[in-house]
Amino acid sequence: MNIAAISTPPGIGGIAVIRVSGPQAIEICDAVFRPFVSGNTLASRKSHTLTYGQIMNPKAGEVIDEVVASVFRAPHSFTGENVVEISCHGSAYVQQKILEVILESDLTENNDSHNKIIRLAEPGEFTRRAFQNGKMDLSQAEAVADLIASNNAASHRLAINQLKGSFSRRLEELRHKLIDLSSLLELELDFSEEDVEFADRTELMSLADDIHDSVNSLASSFQTGSAIRNGIPVAIIGETNAGKSTLLNALLGDDKAIVSDIHGTTRDVIEDTCVMNGTLLRFIDTAGIRDTHDTVEALGIERTFQRISQANIVIWMIDGTRLSESAWTNQLAADAAAMYSRIAPHLNENQKLIIVTNKSDLVPAESLSQNLSVLQEALDKAIHFPHKYIIMCAKDEAGYAALKQAIGEATKLPEVREGDVIVTNLRHYQALTSADNAILRVMHGLASGLSGDFVAQDLRECSHHLGTIVGEVNTKELLSTIFSRFCVGK
Amino acid sequence: MNIAAISTPPGIGGIAVIRVSGPQAIEICDAVFRPFVSGNTLASRKSHTLTYGQIMNPKAGEVIDEVVASVFRAPHSFTGENVVEISCHGSAYVQQKILEVILESDLTENNDSHNKIIRLAEPGEFTRRAFQNGKMDLSQAEAVADLIASNNAASHRLAINQLKGSFSRRLEELRHKLIDLSSLLELELDFSEEDVEFADRTELMSLADDIHDSVNSLASSFQTGSAIRNGIPVAIIGETNAGKSTLLNALLGDDKAIVSDIHGTTRDVIEDTCVMNGTLLRFIDTAGIRDTHDTVEALGIERTFQRISQANIVIWMIDGTRLSESAWTNQLAADAAAMYSRIAPHLNENQKLIIVTNKSDLVPAESLSQNLSVLQEALDKAIHFPHKYIIMCAKDEAGYAALKQAIGEATKLPEVREGDVIVTNLRHYQALTSADNAILRVMHGLASGLSGDFVAQDLRECSHHLGTIVGEVNTKELLSTIFSRFCVGK
Repeated sequence: MNIAAISTPPGIGGIAVIRVSGPQAIEICDAVFRPFVSGNTLASRKSHTLTYGQIMNPKAGEVIDEVVASVFRAPHSFTGENVVEISCHGSAYVQQKILEVILESDLTENNDSHNKIIRLAEPGEFTRRAFQNGKMDLSQAEAVADLIASNNAASHRLAINQLKGSFSRRLEELRHKLIDLSSLLELELDFSEEDVEFADRTELMSLADDIHDSVNSLASSFQTGSAIRNGIPVAIIGETNAGKSTLLNALLGDDKAIVSDIHGTTRDVIEDTCVMNGTLLRFIDTAGIRDTHDTVEALGIERTFQRISQANIVIWMIDGTRLSESAWTNQLAADAAAMYSRIAPHLNENQKLIIVTNKSDLVPAESLSQNLSVLQEALDKAIHFPHKYIIMCAKDEAGYAALKQAIGEATKLPEVREGDVIVTNLRHYQALTSADNAILRVMHGLASGLSGDFVAQDLRECSHHLGTIVGEVNTKELLSTIFSRFCVGK
Repeated sequence: MNIAAISTPPGIGGIAVIRVSGPQAIEICDAVFRPFVSGNTLASRKSHTLTYGQIMNPKAGEVIDEVVASVFRAPHSFTGENVVEISCHGSAYVQQKILEVILESDLTENNDSHNKIIRLAEPGEFTRRAFQNGKMDLSQAEAVADLIASNNAASHRLAINQLKGSFSRRLEELRHKLIDLSSLLELELDFSEEDVEFADRTELMSLADDIHDSVNSLASSFQTGSAIRNGIPVAIIGETNAGKSTLLNALLGDDKAIVSDIHGTTRDVIEDTCVMNGTLLRFIDTAGIRDTHDTVEALGIERTFQRISQANIVIWMIDGTRLSESAWTNQLAADAAAMYSRIAPHLNENQKLIIVTNKSDLVPAESLSQNLSVLQEALDKAIHFPHKYIIMCAKDEAGYAALKQAIGEATKLPEVREGDVIVTNLRHYQALTSADNAILRVMHGLASGLSGDFVAQDLRECSHHLGTIVGEVNTKELLSTIFSRFCVGK
């Protein structure tokens, strides 16, 4: 079946592209295409050429648009099939109309609707065909979707590395090692009756250990990969009037500019993320923490604790108004220490804690510095791992700059270089974890002198899980799940 | 200077296109393009070919994306210059990055920023260059913008006709007639001392009359053209609780689907338009009409009257609740008659009046038909030009259908066929009006036996105004105004 879709972003622009793929893509387009140079039908054109012409509504006999048609002949196209890309004027109406006349094409004399040879492409279907026609493996196909969704340098670089096949090559190496291991083991099986150990058990063990290390290091890169792709989780906690929302808006508003230069990018998908110094952050606003007997509120606070423990960075906002009087300061310090004792069980030393004392503008300068040290002393006593203090007020540029710098320092992710392999996809992570479990069973089996048959079974399972990543092993459901997260037209 | 811009709609999609135009477009792209087939530089490729490769960040030495590059060599391109179109993955980040590396290109050894050879294209600059390089005349260039903005069949067809040059050819014919007229007149001037009338005055007069007819008929097509392009104005009047807003929402919500299948089309630009049966309608909600001593409210009502007089269709909503009792009905009829007497001075017979009696579901069926005729009789007596009654309630599908049909009948615009010339552009309309005034002066001059010199002066003026339409006569300011309404990338 031939497929067609608008491949460019939805909306109005200078130009738009309608993509048609399938065995009859060229004939279907020729049926609605009138070349400016007579005789220049698309069928007559070589692969990788561009042709000027008009798209006609064959029934109404009228011109829909003047276009440029690109012809790619199988297998030298994105999908591996014949592909025509029609570059038209970017009017919403023109795009729809051209798509309509192409979808209505049936090439046969009698307009039998049962005989449709073209339909609208499903999300990701072009890429799915590219995978099915061997133009790329599954992890590369997934990288296409990641590349399109990428909105910062790091996630982009990961997607490009994956698209270029770095991940696939690493998996290939692993599979080679698995095959080595298997063949040694099988040799042993063949001669098992003779009770000869061709395969040196130490050599087998060392190979398995090597595979385990590689799989494990790939799997453990997922935490970094996920943070790069989905954003580093930053929890903002504190009492409601401490200024959390103002801070969040200021942080988002300022830095969102990078992505919102181009409209409609991430906002609809994930709220409250922003790119800061090229790093994607995911801000998590939380409910205020206090003692309560209200069941519903208690549930909300429970969730807050959960999110605190999941965050990489915790920003704790303290309303600094009370720093204006030393008596109040003592109370504030006591309150803060009590607050800390409630959140402490949910913090861990891998997290960064940034304590922001807000509303400093409401405190006379002379009291501020003195009372602040009282507060910080109290907190230093309570907190037993590295933390940072920031003093700020709503309109204070310097305070924001200091906070951003602190966040920046706390979010140092390992730099991604060209060729680096970092797992970003939950599916890949799960497959790697399953493969790792299997290889661990192999190691255990080898160590405990288990029969080669059982060990070989675990080896095959390990190989199977790695195979699902690149798509050598796949099911219809798996493919549908993967490609449904694409946009239509890719 | 070379120029570059993202030409596809803003946002995320399967693919996006970055367009580069200018004398060095191909070399600039080659500096960041690494072909998959080595040696396949863009410079080595023929015009109208497609080449696979990668866009590199030459400074960082890393791959930004895998792309397909189209090469068009001057003069066989949209702009008439060398053009490269880079079809990349539709990620917001990738689009921006590719544009960035292209804009940073300078081809020279030393990165002297004073020596920039490429910059971001201004809105419409590609089309402006197409005009300046003789690829299209000014009215065709304007048709490109109209085509991109078109959101219904009629406005699309007008834009296509104009793009294909129907309007330009009609103007060409007119200019030929003007030249005929001029040459006859000049012949007379040459021999003026001999007092011979070579040019038969009757013939001159008949030619001028002919031109006047053509110009006038083009100018008067503007009313239709403007209605097609900007929407037929439909005013909805009545008391506030008569259900105007519900009606408007129902009408807009229903039919807006056609344009909102593709997000972000007209909503941001013009609120409250919808395409109904292929015709663009512009709904105008108005303030309620009643006697008031409040100055501000009176101003609002004044504006309502103004909008009533500008509308092609007036929908008058009457709250039918009072039709349930005959005593109330009499009062309602009296109120309606009074209301009509207030709006009547602002209505004219070219308008269609549709009287909608709403909330019929709140009235028992037996009272409805009887009391309705009382109301309609009273109104028929007051209203002295054709009007139509519609009975409906909020959830009444049949009522809505009847109303839509009534609106459809009232909005019958002359059908636009391929090749029809209808003026849609205010600038063209003004130029035609000025040209018509000049030719009228010519006719007057001829009739009153004015000296040929003066008549020739008016003829030249007529020719000048027609010339501004296709751009044979143009000023920098005029071009800037025209092209600034384009989107960047076209």
